[in-house]
Amino acid sequence: MRIAGYRIHSIAMSDPPLRSSYGLHAPFALRTILELEGDDGIIGISEAHGGDANAAMFEALRPRIIGANPYRLCGSLLSMVDGAAGDRSQTHLVPGENPHDATARLFSAIEIACLDLIGRTVGQPVCDLLGGRVRDAVPFSAYLFYKHAGGGGGAEPDEYGECLTPEAMVRQARQMVGTYGFQSLKLKAGVLDPDVEIETIRQLRGAFGPTVPLRIDPNCAWSVETSIRVGRELAEELSGEGYLEDPAPGLDGMAAVRRGLLDAGIATPLASNVAITSFSDIPEALKQDAVQIVLCDPHYWGGIRQVQHLSRLCHTFRLGLSMHSNSHLGVSLMAMAHAAAAAPYLSYACDTHYPWQTDRDEVVQGGRVPFTNGAVRIPDRPGLGVDLDYDRLARGRERYASIPFRKRDDAEEMRKHVDRDWRRVVPRW
Amino acid sequence: MRIAGYRIHSIAMSDPPLRSSYGLHAPFALRTILELEGDDGIIGISEAHGGDANAAMFEALRPRIIGANPYRLCGSLLSMVDGAAGDRSQTHLVPGENPHDATARLFSAIEIACLDLIGRTVGQPVCDLLGGRVRDAVPFSAYLFYKHAGGGGGAEPDEYGECLTPEAMVRQARQMVGTYGFQSLKLKAGVLDPDVEIETIRQLRGAFGPTVPLRIDPNCAWSVETSIRVGRELAEELSGEGYLEDPAPGLDGMAAVRRGLLDAGIATPLASNVAITSFSDIPEALKQDAVQIVLCDPHYWGGIRQVQHLSRLCHTFRLGLSMHSNSHLGVSLMAMAHAAAAAPYLSYACDTHYPWQTDRDEVVQGGRVPFTNGAVRIPDRPGLGVDLDYDRLARGRERYASIPFRKRDDAEEMRKHVDRDWRRVVPRW
Repeated sequence: MRIAGYRIHSIAMSDPPLRSSYGLHAPFALRTILELEGDDGIIGISEAHGGDANAAMFEALRPRIIGANPYRLCGSLLSMVDGAAGDRSQTHLVPGENPHDATARLFSAIEIACLDLIGRTVGQPVCDLLGGRVRDAVPFSAYLFYKHAGGGGGAEPDEYGECLTPEAMVRQARQMVGTYGFQSLKLKAGVLDPDVEIETIRQLRGAFGPTVPLRIDPNCAWSVETSIRVGRELAEELSGEGYLEDPAPGLDGMAAVRRGLLDAGIATPLASNVAITSFSDIPEALKQDAVQIVLCDPHYWGGIRQVQHLSRLCHTFRLGLSMHSNSHLGVSLMAMAHAAAAAPYLSYACDTHYPWQTDRDEVVQGGRVPFTNGAVRIPDRPGLGVDLDYDRLARGRERYASIPFRKRDDAEEMRKHVDRDWRRVVPRW
Repeated sequence: MRIAGYRIHSIAMSDPPLRSSYGLHAPFALRTILELEGDDGIIGISEAHGGDANAAMFEALRPRIIGANPYRLCGSLLSMVDGAAGDRSQTHLVPGENPHDATARLFSAIEIACLDLIGRTVGQPVCDLLGGRVRDAVPFSAYLFYKHAGGGGGAEPDEYGECLTPEAMVRQARQMVGTYGFQSLKLKAGVLDPDVEIETIRQLRGAFGPTVPLRIDPNCAWSVETSIRVGRELAEELSGEGYLEDPAPGLDGMAAVRRGLLDAGIATPLASNVAITSFSDIPEALKQDAVQIVLCDPHYWGGIRQVQHLSRLCHTFRLGLSMHSNSHLGVSLMAMAHAAAAAPYLSYACDTHYPWQTDRDEVVQGGRVPFTNGAVRIPDRPGLGVDLDYDRLARGRERYASIPFRKRDDAEEMRKHVDRDWRRVVPRW
């Protein structure tokens, strides 16, 4: 089998006005859908970061893809996982726009489309091409955001409304848990005053009780001192399967937070997808005990096999493993689910932005991928288990063509809609 | 597809009287050939450690194998890779007889047979099922042994004759390199006085020149002081792509050797398949800088995917990666070749005992797997690329049935043939 067709679809989907320390989500999030078509007509798909620059980088790969054997293509492209730069650490750029992991992101999308194509060809689910699933259902966590109301910019308003207080966050959590059945909660923080965010976590604990693990992620918005204070004040609420994610910038900052917490007798683990963004960051992180849980993401780490490698590495060094998410549709959700199903030591529920998108924007046949008790079941179907709906895909392409957004820029959105002098400052508090 | 047949063949092959710090090879080496037959009649094969105890452990797995989907079987057995014991380090038992990695060894053989079965089913070589080859030909190293003459015990005498002096070792190396084209040399040491072994390496360097990398492996036979002395005396001869393998026992001993060599300005890396036998040994080895090159082996580490994981881990921590060998036939040779072809950061020529076996004992169709310039090419055939010759296999089974050996015991062979009071002492010098 040879790859005869390679199609790159730039699409846009409505995205709610979610807040983080990076700024504000634009009214539309951008994604790329890839198709790899074998010379027998079978098509493998994947979903990746969007925008014109990413699409151009995918286009530049065309000569290496057309005519390739999908079983061998990833071996020939493997150097893309490590990229040109030996060290990609400490980036504070918004995910998907970091030039240092650009080739790893491209590789990821090609690998996943190859796996989908091979799985469809041989009639096997992706996770079973990779050594065999270790779980049939993959638990995800509710991903809670402070947010504004309304869609803005021509996007449809979302179903959740404004959420800028602890009380509103409890309502958001109840609504999302009611719809999806999530059994753990993650709060995107670094948006309001830390004391308000501490109170938010406390109200979530009060509403959901100690059996629902809680995570808080300010994306480096806090100083070491503030991080330690938050960690001390939330020691009880983040215990069990909870964690404190990227509180302070840099491995040095994370290590200082860890030391401060341990000195206070608090064992809350620190998780990261900012201080650690690639394998090359891990040795220094271990040396400093800066991170205890790595957030993998098959979209960033070079695909699902690299997530398996990371899983073994983390287990070897007694690091926990969780999974990061960006705004995405059902193809990415299934790639994440298969990655988790094939990663033995992934012991935390995965992040997902999926509840923030809607069926209007979904591109897979049958619409939204179902959740049961907060988990996605691996379907008894080959490949990723979802097919493109070409009418839905066409709507996503049309929307992309009709909007002005060509890259993700959360800071610019903040300046447009919230504070015209806003800029990202880390740490802010 | 389901697994409908599972056959365990205990075979024996002639083995020359090779010496190491473990003792003396018996006249026959024992192997196990596995067959997994799908319900469509396609058969996947692998080769593993032999003897009655290993065969019984394979037999005990039967209920978990019959009826299993070969794409999922390894996922369901994956806990065998880590085994019951959390820590398998510092074993001095002869490879293949260590109870602590027994389940990992069993898993390896099942995984490789599954991969062969899947590869034959879908028409792809094993390395291309695993992300795609990173090389088409896998270089191996000549594996030189001090040895006695004659087969003994009913085994056929080998073609190399006695080798107990530096001059005889140069002849052995010339003979083996002449036949196979190897471009690097490994000396199994820990047998004669260290000064004789130093002289052996010097004569090999004199005969082959500085472009042929040299390795020396006494299997922990030396004290820290002796190891440092040998490392200093052979600093020039082991430079380039050479290394000093398992000179002294234990991670502490290896770390002390490393410090001693660095203090003397000698950067010769230390390799190991004794101080490090599993992932769980790696953190402490790194902490102590006790090992700079890990010798993987898909037979011990839990199969080819674990070797890929190890490859990424070693690259992450700037460890080198090479490959260990035990006495084996063509099925194992091809598993090793596919593992190396699928492991991007395996940067050294692999070990192989293959020259010590002969066509009389080979079990694959067409007889011996060919080498070109010391390398094995990945054949353009599905699976491992070799098929069982059932007449040859039957001869191996008959030989197994007719001999008294039921496990590997190199120390007992020493007592029988060389020194009736011999016992393994590490360090000996």
